[in-house]
Amino acid sequence: MSMQGDGLLVVVSGPSGAGKGTICRSLMDSKKDIVASVSSTTRMPREGEIDGNNYFFISREEFLNMIENDGFIEYAEVYGNFYGTPRKFVEENIKSGKDVLLEIDIQGALQVKEKYKEGVFVFILPPSMEELKSRIIKRGTEDQKEILRRFESAYKEINYVSRYNYFIINDRVDAATDKLRSIITAEKCRVDRFKMKLIGQ
Amino acid sequence: MSMQGDGLLVVVSGPSGAGKGTICRSLMDSKKDIVASVSSTTRMPREGEIDGNNYFFISREEFLNMIENDGFIEYAEVYGNFYGTPRKFVEENIKSGKDVLLEIDIQGALQVKEKYKEGVFVFILPPSMEELKSRIIKRGTEDQKEILRRFESAYKEINYVSRYNYFIINDRVDAATDKLRSIITAEKCRVDRFKMKLIGQ
Repeated sequence: MSMQGDGLLVVVSGPSGAGKGTICRSLMDSKKDIVASVSSTTRMPREGEIDGNNYFFISREEFLNMIENDGFIEYAEVYGNFYGTPRKFVEENIKSGKDVLLEIDIQGALQVKEKYKEGVFVFILPPSMEELKSRIIKRGTEDQKEILRRFESAYKEINYVSRYNYFIINDRVDAATDKLRSIITAEKCRVDRFKMKLIGQ
Repeated sequence: MSMQGDGLLVVVSGPSGAGKGTICRSLMDSKKDIVASVSSTTRMPREGEIDGNNYFFISREEFLNMIENDGFIEYAEVYGNFYGTPRKFVEENIKSGKDVLLEIDIQGALQVKEKYKEGVFVFILPPSMEELKSRIIKRGTEDQKEILRRFESAYKEINYVSRYNYFIINDRVDAATDKLRSIITAEKCRVDRFKMKLIGQ
């Protein structure tokens, strides 16, 4: 009774400051049978960022060309820079049976959900709005106005949790990571998912 | 953002010989925040069986009285003996926020599903039909006819997997136990389940 098949597309999303990046890195460190999708961007690399690791740094022309050829499963322009998730990497891995982890913002996740409804959509929540505020402040890279803007945006974004399959409250990174790992394990045991495979959807 | 509420009713079921008992015991050994439901029966205790541990051994009169008072969430008569899951234990624990583990046969699980559709229904599958046969034989308590009967019955019962939420192939007990644990963890993260709580269903 082999039940091999496509890998899972695991989309981890949530408001800025909820800690989705930390949880995803922690999952990648402990779970070796999942690959992380790397986004493409037209922005300049920051100090220490490595091409192909943090992002694929490509030109605006290359990016527009990829959009034209349906090369992204989602993309967005933020402050004049493009960010997108290359389709090829995601689809090739899933087809070969590997799970793919995609850490993206909420708008990106909702774009992905339009096309990949069989994906597993996980929303990371901060333990409290107070904690969220203090995390945004601690990042230290933003001025007061930027902090307020981010906080307000995060506050609004939390409502999007209803569009996701799972939520994880990120009160402790190890517990949150264990929940994410459990969600992936459990999804592979879902009868509905196996039924979909049988009827070839 | 506290998300406390009712505990989960986790129903583990599957054909005889698939190993549901072993997996449940292994889960109970490693997970301290779940309680196992104890069935009532009118059959005589076997050697080594302890009242209140393996079963609650009660009289036929008491059993029929409990049926009358809707005291079971499922029950059945097998070879002249009654077996049933007392409602009170299950409902009190769930209400108090504790998860309850219920290991029962397929007919019992389907009865429970009628009333508790919010339960988590997990079907344990043997790694192969060959392995199932050899497990039924290894039990050694049955004669040839009984072995054949059990095997045929198990073979038919496997189709019921489609009525369950999850399936676990019991090829290795530790891996199967980890899957069951993950299913419970993941179910607590499901947005649908939380929505149900919000609208008070």
